[in-house]
Amino acid sequence: MSATPQLDAGLRAAMQQTNNLFVNEVVKKRNFAALEQVYTAGARILPPGAPMISGRQAIIDFWSDLVQSVNATDAVLTSVDVILAGDGVVEIGSAMLTMEPPGQAAAQLNAKYVVYWLQENGQWKWHVDIWNPNA
Amino acid sequence: MSATPQLDAGLRAAMQQTNNLFVNEVVKKRNFAALEQVYTAGARILPPGAPMISGRQAIIDFWSDLVQSVNATDAVLTSVDVILAGDGVVEIGSAMLTMEPPGQAAAQLNAKYVVYWLQENGQWKWHVDIWNPNA
Repeated sequence: MSATPQLDAGLRAAMQQTNNLFVNEVVKKRNFAALEQVYTAGARILPPGAPMISGRQAIIDFWSDLVQSVNATDAVLTSVDVILAGDGVVEIGSAMLTMEPPGQAAAQLNAKYVVYWLQENGQWKWHVDIWNPNA
Repeated sequence: MSATPQLDAGLRAAMQQTNNLFVNEVVKKRNFAALEQVYTAGARILPPGAPMISGRQAIIDFWSDLVQSVNATDAVLTSVDVILAGDGVVEIGSAMLTMEPPGQAAAQLNAKYVVYWLQENGQWKWHVDIWNPNA
């Protein structure tokens, strides 16, 4: 559906499904092709310590490099607030990434994020994604 | 006006006016009360290295502390993309902050940001504000 979204259980479930793909497919299984179901084709990410990255293929390359280089093994994404914004949604959330870098103790990175969501082919996806660490 | 916004010169000018307040009043003149014209009453900021901060008074305290502690003397805010989002606007931008910390050489911090804008009492203001450094 592409009607004006309502902030209801259906929307929350659709967003949860996308977030689950990121956690279960991308981080845990390293199925980076699943990012095509997470990000819109024209998505942009704004990672800390790097310039903005535009377009899904470049975003796939970014996450593939990052997940493997830090040996990320788990992630938890928690919505803190969801704001309807026309055809889209602004989400504020918190993220916890578990990393087990080679030769180092396992570590957790606590971050917060803002994602601007849009629907693409009936799926809710991340269109603008920015985050930063809490400490 | 509170009609559905259009991405036109009027909107861009209103956003520029708010951004100018931040640069000229808050950073250059340290008139932190001007932040009442920059952020909505219920605004949230998500600064790198700290938890999310909610509400305008806490945001005023944050910027007052930061601008004075690093001795910020100038800022440049540049819109990279502006996306209409219902009653609001999602802006992607870049920021350059000039700092002259006591006893240290002047330095520039290059950052990028996402702001979700809403109108409050006819003024366009920052409702959700997150940023991170480019390097």
